[in-house]
Amino acid sequence: MTLNSALDQAYDTSDTGFAPIADVAQARRSRKTPSRMKAVALPGDGIGPEIMEAVQRILIAGGARIDWTVCDAGASADAKGAASGLPSETLDEIAKAGMVLKGPLETGVGTGGKSANVTLRKHFELYANVRPARRLPGIITPYMDRDIDLVVVRENVEDLYAGIEHMQTPDVAQCLKLITRAGSAKIAEAAFAVAKADGRSRVTCASKANIMKLSEGLFKTAFEDVAATYPDIASDHMIIDNLAHRLVMSPEDFDVICTTNMNGDIISDLTAGLVGGLGLAPSANLGARMAMFEAVHGSAPDIAGKGLANPTALLLAAIMMLRQGGKLASAERIEHALYVTLEEGEDLTADMATPRGSKPASTEAFADRVISNLGRRSQACPPAPKSSLKLHDGPAQTTAVSAKTDRSDAGVDIFVEFGGGPAELASCLKAAAADLPFTLAMISNRGLKVYPGTVPMADFADHWRCRFASRAPQDDLPEQDLATLMSRISNFARWCHVERLQMMDGAPGFSVAQGQ
Amino acid sequence: MTLNSALDQAYDTSDTGFAPIADVAQARRSRKTPSRMKAVALPGDGIGPEIMEAVQRILIAGGARIDWTVCDAGASADAKGAASGLPSETLDEIAKAGMVLKGPLETGVGTGGKSANVTLRKHFELYANVRPARRLPGIITPYMDRDIDLVVVRENVEDLYAGIEHMQTPDVAQCLKLITRAGSAKIAEAAFAVAKADGRSRVTCASKANIMKLSEGLFKTAFEDVAATYPDIASDHMIIDNLAHRLVMSPEDFDVICTTNMNGDIISDLTAGLVGGLGLAPSANLGARMAMFEAVHGSAPDIAGKGLANPTALLLAAIMMLRQGGKLASAERIEHALYVTLEEGEDLTADMATPRGSKPASTEAFADRVISNLGRRSQACPPAPKSSLKLHDGPAQTTAVSAKTDRSDAGVDIFVEFGGGPAELASCLKAAAADLPFTLAMISNRGLKVYPGTVPMADFADHWRCRFASRAPQDDLPEQDLATLMSRISNFARWCHVERLQMMDGAPGFSVAQGQ
Repeated sequence: MTLNSALDQAYDTSDTGFAPIADVAQARRSRKTPSRMKAVALPGDGIGPEIMEAVQRILIAGGARIDWTVCDAGASADAKGAASGLPSETLDEIAKAGMVLKGPLETGVGTGGKSANVTLRKHFELYANVRPARRLPGIITPYMDRDIDLVVVRENVEDLYAGIEHMQTPDVAQCLKLITRAGSAKIAEAAFAVAKADGRSRVTCASKANIMKLSEGLFKTAFEDVAATYPDIASDHMIIDNLAHRLVMSPEDFDVICTTNMNGDIISDLTAGLVGGLGLAPSANLGARMAMFEAVHGSAPDIAGKGLANPTALLLAAIMMLRQGGKLASAERIEHALYVTLEEGEDLTADMATPRGSKPASTEAFADRVISNLGRRSQACPPAPKSSLKLHDGPAQTTAVSAKTDRSDAGVDIFVEFGGGPAELASCLKAAAADLPFTLAMISNRGLKVYPGTVPMADFADHWRCRFASRAPQDDLPEQDLATLMSRISNFARWCHVERLQMMDGAPGFSVAQGQ
Repeated sequence: MTLNSALDQAYDTSDTGFAPIADVAQARRSRKTPSRMKAVALPGDGIGPEIMEAVQRILIAGGARIDWTVCDAGASADAKGAASGLPSETLDEIAKAGMVLKGPLETGVGTGGKSANVTLRKHFELYANVRPARRLPGIITPYMDRDIDLVVVRENVEDLYAGIEHMQTPDVAQCLKLITRAGSAKIAEAAFAVAKADGRSRVTCASKANIMKLSEGLFKTAFEDVAATYPDIASDHMIIDNLAHRLVMSPEDFDVICTTNMNGDIISDLTAGLVGGLGLAPSANLGARMAMFEAVHGSAPDIAGKGLANPTALLLAAIMMLRQGGKLASAERIEHALYVTLEEGEDLTADMATPRGSKPASTEAFADRVISNLGRRSQACPPAPKSSLKLHDGPAQTTAVSAKTDRSDAGVDIFVEFGGGPAELASCLKAAAADLPFTLAMISNRGLKVYPGTVPMADFADHWRCRFASRAPQDDLPEQDLATLMSRISNFARWCHVERLQMMDGAPGFSVAQGQ
């Protein structure tokens, strides 16, 4: 047994943190073989292969014992005929290993516009996007004197990213923002799990619940329900725009931030910018059954193959992966070596060297420098996580319909395309509903009530929401009467969209219009 | 005639920029009386009245001739019985004057949760929210050595803020994101108008068109159509998350940013944070018929009435208002006096004085200091706008339905609540449609295709999108057949939402699912 492999064992078998050199002798004596971790490497496109090679080299030197399976993905796989850049063998290997280190993937031409990244997240229910933003030593930013150490936990599969869009009229487009209670609870659980694993003390929920009371409100409520089960971790709520404001004013005040998909997309790139940019930002995409770690940056085709790329972001992602796999000690060892390298500033790649006025080094030289610093400890290195992150299994694949909610139908919203004004439309709609069990209750245009009452000084789109109240509360909406109404509406307007108005436990499951 | 009123005239009659003192004699000789500007002041709640008083005093001293009408609004008006905090007399006066300077308004208890701010914007079609972010001299921020001088032009009335929400099931909430071509074109026009008035050279459109190809895509397309008509102003596009990243990395690179409502909400608070925070941030809400200027900050009830509040944000808003009203010279005079005051740091309010280690002054003393600096010129003051901002009138109140788009119906999406799995649902749906002119084409859950083909490793909500294709392309969807289908679906699931699938000029006016 070489010293190196003894060292490997010393690090890999330690689950409690950094193993000092003194433990090596003991490791050598103990015959316990550390478990090897299985992982799929997706080198990806552009600079992907060269940074992956550098990172794998550092991981081996750092004592992380990993059985790698290298698979095709991205534009290169797409070019070989795999639609969406994901060959089925790749998906199979990922499902087997449950752990992926991913380089940048380009969206190929044969994907119908669907990105391999999004498809991977959706397909494996990688519902938690964990994006740490920590000040890196020696990286020059406006915040380099601030103690930034936060994590954004972004919901990763629902919200506007479900991508459900319908042209309502040739001039009005609609995208559905969908928020589920289970999805919101799961991401809240993930945020608290991150806080626990990292030994963090506060989780901030960020939402726009003040405006979107039902959808963002559901997210906030689900978060609060979960927060109540973690009495040892503080929690609070912040309006998302205020969060963006506070993050650039005093980022050191934040710990864990939990937010919805679209808002989290913006916020997590903002926080990456605070500590040096996407070129240095790692990301984890976690689900109950699979975890994927990646650099956030693109494939940088302009410098691909030249040995100039910075592998730091992918290395930070790999360190997250080691921790996920329980390799806390080797993760810490490698992280310290990286921080020492950044601190001392020798052999940095051009993107990091140039702002410091030092001489740029190659990807390979940088990796060599990190390797040569293995075993050294950095003063700037953040506190090591206390344990691996364990995400709760979510609910079963299919959530049973909640039987306990008392329901009745209050009516329908029918969205129509109409070229006239609100008075004309109201009169046509009233005539259409006259002998039917529906009463015209309200018309709004772009969310603003235009009937009944004063017509506001606003411009109108050719897209109107027409709210019909059921004459009497009903258990079941009469589809045939509705069809008659819709068919009559078709004589003067084009209906494009119908929403059932449900009362749930006596409260309206729908919003009222501005001005109503 | 006093020297002061002669000065007033000298400044107010000049439309071309700063009027040097030498012009005073000429102004005294000319008998031309400068036009007085009408404006409504809404002091609002909390610190509103005291900062409004300070700002009005500075405006008078600065030679801005304004006929003020002071009106009730906000929680105080709400307490007197005006629902949504907006008495009808206030709305009438605003409509008459067309120009408003607004203090912070609290959302009162009797408003049904609708904010007076949002209602004002919607009611008067204040579609453009203009939020400048300029480095202020002496204000300590991480970016104080950066030349930040940008403007965010945020669409202000549509998008998710239409607030159209429907609970789809007790556990799935939906908010409609609605983007119109006319609304998008108008905000793009406003962004270019800002660029022209300010003598700026570039407008950046920020969107998430890469994911939301129809809705955010429509915004981007409309922007590009408008940009083509401004060959003298450069334009580009940036993905919104990348914009957030670039803004914290290199905010000095930006000029005018044009974006949608929700994204703009986050981005404009971010940019305010870069230059000192919301406490110093002015905002204009502009429409073709009315303009409202406000501080972005809240009513700060904890310090209300104590004479401690900082009137800078409201003063910057008032300066924007003067420019809108054509009072370019007095605006510039007051802006220089403010910048000189901030530069020199005497008599600053506590929020600005404390970080600089200087002695805090009262609201009144700060206003006195600005007044005493009138006539002095600041080196740090940004270049003065070249002309007043003139927004194009939008289209007529009602947009006629576009007759030129060739349309046919491709089918329907029926969204249902169902507690079973995808195979069971598919089999029920196929049976329901068997003898009808619809074929089950696809089922998706949270945007991910679950039928036909492999069921992905994902969690399912109890909310399913069931896509039925028309057996043959049709001009009119047969409502009675649809009713039969919906009524049969009601036997095993609860439908909550129907979307018509329209072909527009031969292209689908709807998105496909992830994995489809």
